[in-house]
Parts: sequence; structure tokens; C-alpha cells
Amino acid sequence: MQQLLSPTISYPSPLLHLTSHPFPPKPHFCPTHRLSFYPPPKMASFSGFLAKSQMGMTAGDGANGFSSLMDYVGKGGLDVGDDLLVLLYHIQFACKRIAALVASPFNSALGKHSALTGATSGAAASDRDKPKPLDIVANEIILSSLRNSGKVSVMASEEDDAPIWINDDGPFVVVLDPLDGSRNIDASIPTGTIFGVYNRLTELDNQPTEEKALLNSLQSGRKLVAAGYVLYSSATILCASFGSGTHAFTLDHSTGDFILTHPSIRIPPRGQIYSVNDARYFDWPEGLRQYIDTVRQGKGKFPKKYSARYICSLVADFHRTVLYGGIAMNPRDHLRLVYEANPLSYLAEQAGGKGSDGKSRILSIQPVKLHQRLPLFLGSLEDIVELESYGDVQQKVNPGYEV
Amino acid sequence: MQQLLSPTISYPSPLLHLTSHPFPPKPHFCPTHRLSFYPPPKMASFSGFLAKSQMGMTAGDGANGFSSLMDYVGKGGLDVGDDLLVLLYHIQFACKRIAALVASPFNSALGKHSALTGATSGAAASDRDKPKPLDIVANEIILSSLRNSGKVSVMASEEDDAPIWINDDGPFVVVLDPLDGSRNIDASIPTGTIFGVYNRLTELDNQPTEEKALLNSLQSGRKLVAAGYVLYSSATILCASFGSGTHAFTLDHSTGDFILTHPSIRIPPRGQIYSVNDARYFDWPEGLRQYIDTVRQGKGKFPKKYSARYICSLVADFHRTVLYGGIAMNPRDHLRLVYEANPLSYLAEQAGGKGSDGKSRILSIQPVKLHQRLPLFLGSLEDIVELESYGDVQQKVNPGYEV
Amino acid sequence: MQQLLSPTISYPSPLLHLTSHPFPPKPHFCPTHRLSFYPPPKMASFSGFLAKSQMGMTAGDGANGFSSLMDYVGKGGLDVGDDLLVLLYHIQFACKRIAALVASPFNSALGKHSALTGATSGAAASDRDKPKPLDIVANEIILSSLRNSGKVSVMASEEDDAPIWINDDGPFVVVLDPLDGSRNIDASIPTGTIFGVYNRLTELDNQPTEEKALLNSLQSGRKLVAAGYVLYSSATILCASFGSGTHAFTLDHSTGDFILTHPSIRIPPRGQIYSVNDARYFDWPEGLRQYIDTVRQGKGKFPKKYSARYICSLVADFHRTVLYGGIAMNPRDHLRLVYEANPLSYLAEQAGGKGSDGKSRILSIQPVKLHQRLPLFLGSLEDIVELESYGDVQQKVNPGYEV
Amino acid sequence: MQQLLSPTISYPSPLLHLTSHPFPPKPHFCPTHRLSFYPPPKMASFSGFLAKSQMGMTAGDGANGFSSLMDYVGKGGLDVGDDLLVLLYHIQFACKRIAALVASPFNSALGKHSALTGATSGAAASDRDKPKPLDIVANEIILSSLRNSGKVSVMASEEDDAPIWINDDGPFVVVLDPLDGSRNIDASIPTGTIFGVYNRLTELDNQPTEEKALLNSLQSGRKLVAAGYVLYSSATILCASFGSGTHAFTLDHSTGDFILTHPSIRIPPRGQIYSVNDARYFDWPEGLRQYIDTVRQGKGKFPKKYSARYICSLVADFHRTVLYGGIAMNPRDHLRLVYEANPLSYLAEQAGGKGSDGKSRILSIQPVKLHQRLPLFLGSLEDIVELESYGDVQQKVNPGYEV
Repeated sequence: MQQLLSPTISYPSPLLHLTSHPFPPKPHFCPTHRLSFYPPPKMASFSGFLAKSQMGMTAGDGANGFSSLMDYVGKGGLDVGDDLLVLLYHIQFACKRIAALVASPFNSALGKHSALTGATSGAAASDRDKPKPLDIVANEIILSSLRNSGKVSVMASEEDDAPIWINDDGPFVVVLDPLDGSRNIDASIPTGTIFGVYNRLTELDNQPTEEKALLNSLQSGRKLVAAGYVLYSSATILCASFGSGTHAFTLDHSTGDFILTHPSIRIPPRGQIYSVNDARYFDWPEGLRQYIDTVRQGKGKFPKKYSARYICSLVADFHRTVLYGGIAMNPRDHLRLVYEANPLSYLAEQAGGKGSDGKSRILSIQPVKLHQRLPLFLGSLEDIVELESYGDVQQKVNPGYEV
Repeated sequence: MQQLLSPTISYPSPLLHLTSHPFPPKPHFCPTHRLSFYPPPKMASFSGFLAKSQMGMTAGDGANGFSSLMDYVGKGGLDVGDDLLVLLYHIQFACKRIAALVASPFNSALGKHSALTGATSGAAASDRDKPKPLDIVANEIILSSLRNSGKVSVMASEEDDAPIWINDDGPFVVVLDPLDGSRNIDASIPTGTIFGVYNRLTELDNQPTEEKALLNSLQSGRKLVAAGYVLYSSATILCASFGSGTHAFTLDHSTGDFILTHPSIRIPPRGQIYSVNDARYFDWPEGLRQYIDTVRQGKGKFPKKYSARYICSLVADFHRTVLYGGIAMNPRDHLRLVYEANPLSYLAEQAGGKGSDGKSRILSIQPVKLHQRLPLFLGSLEDIVELESYGDVQQKVNPGYEV
Repeated sequence: MQQLLSPTISYPSPLLHLTSHPFPPKPHFCPTHRLSFYPPPKMASFSGFLAKSQMGMTAGDGANGFSSLMDYVGKGGLDVGDDLLVLLYHIQFACKRIAALVASPFNSALGKHSALTGATSGAAASDRDKPKPLDIVANEIILSSLRNSGKVSVMASEEDDAPIWINDDGPFVVVLDPLDGSRNIDASIPTGTIFGVYNRLTELDNQPTEEKALLNSLQSGRKLVAAGYVLYSSATILCASFGSGTHAFTLDHSTGDFILTHPSIRIPPRGQIYSVNDARYFDWPEGLRQYIDTVRQGKGKFPKKYSARYICSLVADFHRTVLYGGIAMNPRDHLRLVYEANPLSYLAEQAGGKGSDGKSRILSIQPVKLHQRLPLFLGSLEDIVELESYGDVQQKVNPGYEV
Repeated sequence: MQQLLSPTISYPSPLLHLTSHPFPPKPHFCPTHRLSFYPPPKMASFSGFLAKSQMGMTAGDGANGFSSLMDYVGKGGLDVGDDLLVLLYHIQFACKRIAALVASPFNSALGKHSALTGATSGAAASDRDKPKPLDIVANEIILSSLRNSGKVSVMASEEDDAPIWINDDGPFVVVLDPLDGSRNIDASIPTGTIFGVYNRLTELDNQPTEEKALLNSLQSGRKLVAAGYVLYSSATILCASFGSGTHAFTLDHSTGDFILTHPSIRIPPRGQIYSVNDARYFDWPEGLRQYIDTVRQGKGKFPKKYSARYICSLVADFHRTVLYGGIAMNPRDHLRLVYEANPLSYLAEQAGGKGSDGKSRILSIQPVKLHQRLPLFLGSLEDIVELESYGDVQQKVNPGYEV
């Protein structure tokens, strides 16, 4: 893949080099069933010496005709290496279990107790970010999978106060938000899992456990070796990057595998959608108000009337933004640098988009605290550049809303 | 759920007999697995005359312990009658097939061609409401199921220009929007199917086919004998009413059946969420601007800062509203009275909420055209009454937005 | 299948009207995916008056292109009536739940305790027919579904000592073996559910409950209005007859519905397989030994060397016999007339085959006891006629084998 | 299971180190749902330094509470190494796709054309072993997965005339029968996939491709580093050994993963079942007739009346034998040494049983031809030793039976 050979991503015209890009592969189309699917990225070279078998192989590709996640990142594809491949297997395994949990009628009562009770009960705002039951279960499922992978030295989760040291030899550090948007689960609104992967800093191996756990987890987003999210919605989508483009896979429930459906995604340089909680308009700074009012009226640099969407589920709002363009944002000091902003910004950049706190590139911000929060703007490159030009877009007022 | 505990909502006729209804049943809770589930609504009376068998039966209920859609509406439950039960079987069957289609990796390419291409290609606004491939497939799936049910005389679909006469003897008329929000499918955002069921007007049986098809389809929403929606999201939810409360069922993928998870839903009389495309603020009438600005600031009759959500998928926005309260709205002349407004208003009323066009009760509006459009406000009774008090809430400007 | 091409089988009454039956439909074949499937049996007549809709309908059939169980027996197909259709819905629902239970890794431990422990532990023979845990669970699942159907007055199960009276108004009597072959479950060998349906004898309505429950359950097999089995194997197959041919449906796990895959099955008049526990050779009567030795050597009327198969799971052995021909048998006094022999003989006859106790037609035997046992021979008409000509084929020795 | 409690089986080398093996783990039992399941084999050592997280972890294990195939063979379990783990992932992935194919209603027509047509059409015996459509599809699916694994240098399949060279660097050689028993598919009788894994012989790396492909595939069964089968039946079972016991896993359809259900299986030293095509009695040699007649009558060294079972699907008959004991056999020159006899004998020995050709240990036979056939006897150690003592048990007559 071209991007494997050009890791010096030079930013501007993110779509320009797509023209000569060998990806995305052309989909196969079955006219009878009106289905399209994608072949594996490249075939392992081999010398079959039997005509019959070669025919068999060709037919076999016809029979298969698509690429699974494990195939795509394996030897015949991106070749991310066995360590990362095994880790990825365990992450997707955990996420499939979470997807099944979220879909099941037998778990709806569980989520019920964690619902948006603030809406009617007037619970204190400080309750809003408390871990909810399904969050905890998701956290445990992922911890168990990471542990079983044998590939993880430390896991830092949005649900835990401190990182968990797992395995001295694990080559990787995993940061994650196990079930983002879990307050939506009662209403079956999409939720998601966000993860980032770093190499273990071997220079810290002799430090005390607590210290090396923390420092390994506070690495700069620029050092991510992989990141991804899993969206639990009408389809279950795993979208990930390993430093060479952003690729999305859709769960095939008949086999339990993720199938490549969106290779080498490019965020359109301009979208026509902004995603924000408009109800906070009166708490926004002047710059953000002006930006939103401008694009709403079609008076921005892109002369289209922008439209609003706000699922209030970061992964779902980001996924739509990745595919359709525009900006997904939370302008107040709310989202976490380590667990949310860095992995998603990495994916945005790998797709030709941008992640910003309204002033700076997210990946340039050095985390200093594990649960550090900040404003977050993700999406189309040109839209974010335009937004940043309004200067004053970070919401200072943060009263701890009930809903 | 708190709302289950506050049955003080007084709402006129259609719910009156609910007061003495044996619902909702109490959920069973399994402490080991932290799951709750609902038993069938009431047990068919029977006289087992064998102690052993009776014990078997008791254990059997333990083994089953929940109520499926067919059980709930059948003889031992709501007892809606065989005709409606068979029709309902076929509707849920079609919707499961749509759910599988929407979830499948092999159909994502299909949706791709129908995507929000207006965002980047500037397609003419008139293209926006064109039937999209998956809409058409969903329409065909449902038509086929309705035909096979043998229970439907005429189907009127949002996808078809005119109603389809199916069967002279079919006792029912079905109106439906087969795949609402289908423009969201590419981004795996929730979509839904909406349906309404009327009795066939036998007094029209001798009229010409075209005429009786149309007139049967234009019945007042007050004559609905059943209505429902299926939400395709992280879970697949079927929510329906047969004139005695609104009940939601969640698809159990291991058996393909819908399991009762939300019996006798009551929309909270007040929510704290409004759902609208805020980007149209400058096109709104003064009344609506004032209402939204008021509740955003927590200055309405319910002194809470309302929050915004806007999935832009009517079924998903309505489902959240049913569970959490508030208002889901589209203030311009956009949604269809027959296919969307009437069935959802019926469900809202059956849950103690309200459906309004900003001035009148939706169910009081006599349809005059099949594809008749109107402003729509659905949700919490008190929120909608307050909104209506602002008078001028229907958006007159309707420029045909691109997104 | 060749047997579809040889309709020359002349068999007495129950199949006569099959000759003029519009079945079987021709399968559709998709050349791209090498799949065949069957359309619904016949289309409900209808007069679509819109060209567009008619095209939509045609396309819809293409999109659907197959017939589900409910469609096949509904108004547009066999039209078995709403009462039977609703009952059938509940039976297939219960069987899907049993299929999921049997397939699940989390239930293997359950079956473990019920395993073929006699083999190594020398348990008394009388233990062999004791209800096993999964049998009991399956029994409870079905009882619950029958009760919820509202269509069943009495259920007589192989697992219960006496029939269970369910509902005075239920139009049907159901006899069943809930999980035949359950001793095989530990080794994941196929198992099955067998059921038969009679009309309630209204002339008994005023009798005492215990008496009418028993007499309703002891009806002659000739009075069956429907019968079927569900095979839990590599696929889940529901095979049933409603008096007009035997039809098999395969569970589609993606939607949870049974799809018509084997319409109007005809058992080949001759097979080349016999299915019996050959280990009992020395306990067989002379006639049976001679028959088996003769066909083994290819010296019977059909001059082929017969082959042996013996899964020891009645439903699986019968299903293979229905499709491939030959005889499935248990020559000793072991299988139950009411729960096993009658329903399967009905299916055999409806497919042009035969059910015999070695001397008489099974369906002619009047049950006198609920759990009455007898020798059973099922399969190809000519093979069974030849077997019967050996006279002495019923095993008298019945020592209660351990395995 | 009783056999787990009787570890008195003394069998030579390959199992010796099992004695000190920490397996089998004790199952957890949930009293409420009457389910048992197994925890991961051993926990990765780790030093969590946060009490809260440790509690989370404990709870997490409760939430998970079982071991998946990948977990069990990974770092925290058997630790077979990343190369083998990645290969295993791809094999189980292929097998899940085959399982879905075999179960689907839309593929039944496919198998139909490959059915037991010999039974009625008198096709020449030489047609019987011809590749059947689903065999070919299964072969292609596995080839594709092995290729994508990047771990396989050469694959030798029962379906191909010669081995297929895949990848010079692949550390492994895979031999396999992709869909054993495929003639049974029409009748939904269980089928299976059998595989064996060898290390690539690096000393041959410089040989011509055709030669090294062949020689790598002809390795002695004693050099197997792993072997397994997947049974497609009422449950989908993957049973495998990596040189330290035989373990079986059951597919959980809700997540698509194989869950450990049968750790460290021990074949009972004696069974009470023999599995053979009894119809060939008159073609058997005297020794085999005597053995079978003896055990049928309960006159063998184990004084029990043996019972017959014969599914005629090698994997299904073997799986039952592994769990219940006894012998699964085909006494004529029919089964393949490389693809069937060696992998299954390896599994038998790892479970304390034996694989024999009636005279010699299978694993001692040096393959000289790729498709070499031989008589095969698999099962309980003492039963096979007794059978071998009859001397003359290999069937010489091999007329090419039609069925």
C-alpha cells in the first residue's frame, strides 16, 4: 500500500494523492444479488504448480471474494506483525462480546438502571460521569481479553482511576474508552469503544510499577502505533488505522468476522454537517457562535447551508463525520485527551482529516494527566481550519449539565 | 424506570382502560447474571391435573421466563385476534429481514450509492427524497410479507406513488414507511420502519379498485387499530400499540424472536431534551425560536436547561423521546401524515404523550392526500402543550435543503 | 432429485389429491452464487393497478425469492387456517429455542450429566429412559409455547406421565416427543423434536378433565391433521405435513425463519440403506436376520448391496430415509406409538412411503395406552413391503440394553 | 464425566507430561441458569497495583468466566506461539464459514446435486469419491484462509491431486480433508473438517517446488505439531491437540468464538460401542467377524453387550468415540493416511486412546504416497488392543460400494 511507503504524510490536499492511489480496490459486484464486496488488499505471492489447484484458488477467491480484518492486517495484507495482529484479535473479540451484550433483550434491564435518570430525577451533575453498569462490564470484558492476549503490559481505561499493569513482557500499551455513550444504551442509541495502542517504553522497564504504568500511558498521541473504534449501531463497524490509512470493517454476524467494507477512507475536505449540542449556544464563546451561525446560513467559505446532527454519542458522530465530512465537536473541557481525543485524531489524520482543540493539533498536546480533558473538534480538514480561524471557539463555561 | 412509578398522568380516552390493566408485569431478576426479564402478560387459565406436570410447568416458566411478541399479543396476553396476530407475524418477519440487510457487510456497498452525496456533489435538492436502493428493497420485502399474510387488502407505502391493492378479502389496510432515515445507512446511523394498521372499510368493497384503495388508505388516524415502528440500531426494537398501551420488544438474535423488554411505556410528562435541526434556526418562525431559546436556557415552565439531540432519523429520535421524554420535531412541512405522523402520534398517545402539528392534535387531521406533508411535534404531553402555547411554531420557509 | 421425476408411486388414500396439487414449484437458480431457492407455493391473486407497483412487486419477489414456513402454510400457500398457523408459529418458536440451547457452548455441561453414563457405569437399564435434563428443559419450552398459543386444549408429551390439560377452548391436541435422541447430545449427535396435531374431540368437552385429556390424546393416527419433526443437526430442519404432501424447511439463522428447501418430498420407492442397531443381530427373529442378510448381499428384489447407517437418533435416521430412501427401523418393542410412530408414519405416507410395525400399517393401530410401545419400520414403500414379506421381523427379546 | 475421574490410563510418552499439567480446570457452575463453563487455563501473572482495578478484574472474570480458543492457546494458556496461534485463527475462521454454509437454507440446493445419487442411479463406484461441490467450496475457503495467514508453506488437501505451494517462508505444512462426509450434507447429517500441522522441513528449502511440496506433505504422523477436527452438527465443535492433551471447543454463535467446553479429554479405556458399516459383514475377514460377533454378544474381555452406531461420517463417529469410548472403524483400504488417519490418531493418542490399521500404530506408518489409503481403527485403548488380538481384521475385498 502506498501509504506504507510514504509515512511522511504531507498534510494539505488530502485527497490529491488518492488519484494515483492503488486503493481502494475496486469492489466486486454481483449483478444478481446486487451486492458489492472488496477483495483482500494484495495476494501473498506463491507458486502453485498445479493447474487444477490454481483454478481452485481462483475459484476460491471467487467463493470468498472479500477480506476479513485478520486477513487484511496479516501477512498477505498490511502485515502489521504477529504481536499487533494477536492483540487486534483479542480487541475485536472483546468488542463482539460487547456488541452482543448491547443488542440483547436480556440486558436492557441492566442498562435501565443506568439511564438518563438525570432528566427526570434531577440527579446531581456529578453523577453524570459515574461509571454505569454496562460500562463496567465492557471494561471487564476488554481487560480480560487484553490480559489473555499476552501482548499488553499496561491498560489505561477511562473507567479506571489508574492504569492496570498486566504483563512485564507485553510489547504494547493500550488506552481505551470501553463504552462511550453508554448513557444512550437505554434508548438503543449507538455507542462505541475507542482504543489506542502504543509500544511499551522499554527504557522504563526498571521503574516502579506504578510509575512506569502511568508514564507508558501518558505517551504523546504522535507515538500511537494503532488506534480504532468499534461502533455498535444498526451495523457493528470496526474502524482502525495502523499508520497507513484508516479502514473500516463490518461485522458479518453469520461468521462472527469483520469484513473490509471501507478501505482507505478519506474524509471529504469539506462536509456540510456540524455536530454539536446546540442547546449550549448561550454558553458558547463569541467565536463559536459566529462560526455556527455563519455556516448555518451558508455564508462560510464553503457556500452551503450546513445542517445539524447530534447523536451525542462520540463514536457515532465521529463515524458519520469520517464518511460524510464536516465537524464533530464538543467545545467545552469535557472529552479525554488520552482515551478519546488522541485515538480519534489519529484516525482523522490517517483519513486526511484533522483533530484540534480549537487552537492546536490534538496529537501535539503532551498528556500530563491520565484523565485530562479538553475541547475537541474532529473532521474535515478545511472545515476545521475555517473553524480555528474564528479564534475563540473553546467554551469556558462548564456548569456540569444534567443532560 | 421512574415513569412506571408515576401513573398520575391523566390523558383522555384511549388509555383509560389501561388503569385497570394487569400491566406492567414485574421483571424477574437473576442475581447471578444481573439480567432482568419479563414474564408473559398473563397466564392462560388451565387446570393441570398432574402434580408432576404442574411442577414441570413451573420450572418451564423459569426456563423460559420471558414473553415473546407473539405470546404477548396472543390468546394468553393482549389477545388481539388471529387476523392481527398473523399480520403482525408477517410484519416482524419482514423487519427482521430488513435488520439483517442493514447490518450486513455485504450490503454496505449498496447503500453507498445512495449516500449523502449531496454533501460534496451538490446534487439538486429534488434528488433528496428520491427512493434509495435499500428503501426499495425494504419496500419489496414488506410488500411480499403483507401479501403472504393473506390479511391485507391494501398497502400504502411512502415509497409508492399510489396504494397497492393486494387482496379483496384482507381485513386490514397497512400504511407504512418501509425504511425511514435510509440516507443514514452509509454511516450505520439508526433507521426504522413505521407502520399503521386500519380495518378495511367494507362499505367500499364494491367501489372501483383504485378508488377503494385510496379511500381505505386515507382513513383518519383515530381509526388506527394498531401502529408501530421497528428501530434498527445497536439493538433491534419493535415498539407497537394495539390500543392498550405502547409496548417495546427487543430482537433476540439467538432465536430470531422479539422479547418484551418495555411493557406499557409511559412517556415522562416532561423531558429535558429537544430534537430538531438547529441549523435551520434562521428559517424558523419567531415562536419556535423563542421556545427553543427559552428551554435551552432553563427558563421554560420546567426550569431545567434542555439539551439538544438530533440523530435525524425519525424513528430513533422518537424512540429516545418515548423513553426519556422531551420533544422530537420537524417544524417544516416535511413529514407525511399518513405514513409517519399518524402511526407515531398513535403510539405517543398510547404512551401518555402527544402528537401535534404545532396547533392541532395529529390524529384529528383528516388526510386528504396520500403523501400529504405537515410539521410534526411528538413527545411529552406537558412539553408539547408548552410549545404549542408559543403559537407560531410551524416553519413556513421550506427551501429544500441539500442535507 | 430423481425421486421428484418418478411420480408413478401409487399409494392409497391420503396422497391421492396430491396428483393435482400445484406443488412442487420449480426452484430459482442464481448462477453467480450457485444457489437455488423456492418461491412461495402460489401467489395470492391480486390486482395491482399501478404499473410501477407491479414492477416493484416483481422486483420484490426477486429480492425475496423464497418462501418462509409461515408464508407457505398461510393464505397465499397451503392455507391451513389461522388456528393451525398460529399453533405452528408457536411450535417452531419453541424449536428454535431448543436448537439454540443444543448448539450453545454454555449448555454442554448441562448435557454432560445426562450422558451415556450407562456405557461405563453399568447403570441399570431402567435408567435409560429416564427424563434427562435437556429433555425436561425442551419439554418445558414447548409446553410454554403451546400454552401461549391459545390453540391447544391438551398436550401429551413423552416426558410426562399423563397429558396436561391447557385450555378448554383450544381447538387442537398436541402429542410430542420434545427431544428425541437426547442421550446423543453430549457428543453433539443430531437430535429432534417430533409432534402430531389432532382436533379436539368436542364430544368429550363435558367429560372430567383427566378423562378427556387422555381420550383426546389417544386418537388414531389416521385423524392427525398435521405432524412434523425438527432435526437439530448441521442445519436445523423443520419437516411437516398438513395433509397435502411433506415439506421441509431450513432455519435461516440470519433472520430466525424457516425457509422452504424441500417442497413436496417423495421418498424414493426403493432405497439402498437400512438403519438398525446391527449389534442386536443375535436377538433378532429369524425373519429379520434373513431380510438384513439378504439385502446386505444384494440378493433382495432390488439387486443392490444395501449399506448400513445407524445414528441412533430417530429423527436423523428418519430424515435421511425420507430423502435417500431405504428403511429406518427399531424392531423391538421400544418406540412410542403416540409420540413417535404415528407422527412419523403420517409424514412417511404423505411423502409416498410407509410406516409399519412389521405387520400392520402404523396409522391403523388404535392407541390404547398413552406410552404404548411397538416395533417400528419407516421408509420406502417397496422396501417395507419386501421386509414385511419376511413375516417374522418383530424382535421379541427386549432385555433393556445398557447402550 | 466419569472418565475424567479415572486417570489410571497408562499410555506411553506423548501424554506423560500431562500428569503434571495444571489442566483440566474445574468448571464454574451457575446455579440459577444451570450452566457450567470453564475459566481460562491459567492466568497471566500480573501485578495490578490498584485495589479497585483488581476488584474490577475479578468481577471481569466473573463477567467472562470462560476461555475462548484463542485465549486457551495464547500466552496465558498453552502458549503455542504466535505462528501457530495465527494459523489456528485462520483455520477456525475458515471452518466457521464452512459451518455457516452447511447450515444455510440457501445452500441446500447446492448439496442436492452432490447427493447420494449412486443409491438410485447406479452411478459407477469410481464416481463416489469425486469432489462434490461443497467439498470444493470448503477446500477453496480453507486454502484462502491458509494463504492469508502467511504461516503456511504448503497445503496438501484430500481434494487436490497434488500439494499446493503457498509461501516459501511459511513455517508450517498443513494437511487436511476439508469436508469429510460431504455426501451426507443433503440429509443434514454431520460432516467435518480434519487438519494436521507439521513444521516446514527447512532442509528441503532449496529443492524444486514440486519436490519439496510433496516431501513436506509426506511427513510421519509422529512429527505432527498440531491436529484437529471441526464437527458440523447440532453444535459446531472444534477439537484439537497441540501436543499436550486433546481439547474441544464449542462455537458460540452470539460472538462467533469457540469456547472451551471439553478440556483435556480422556477417551475411556473401554467403551461399549462399535462403529462400522455392518452391511459389509459378508466381505469382512474372519477375525473381524469374530470380534464383532463376540462383543455384540457381550462375550469379549469387557463383558458388556456392545451396541452399534454408524453415522458414516468419520468426524462424527470419531467424536462420539472420543467422548463415549469404543471403536470407530473402516476395515477396508479406504481412508487416507495423510489427511484422516494421522491427524485423528494423533488426537486419539493425546486423549489416551489409540489409532491402528488393525496391526500397527498409525503414527508409525511412513506415508509414501499422498493419497495412500488404509484400514483404520480409532478409539479406546483396551478395545483396540483386544480387536488387534483377533489378527485378521483388515478387509481385503474392496469392490467399490455404491453407497
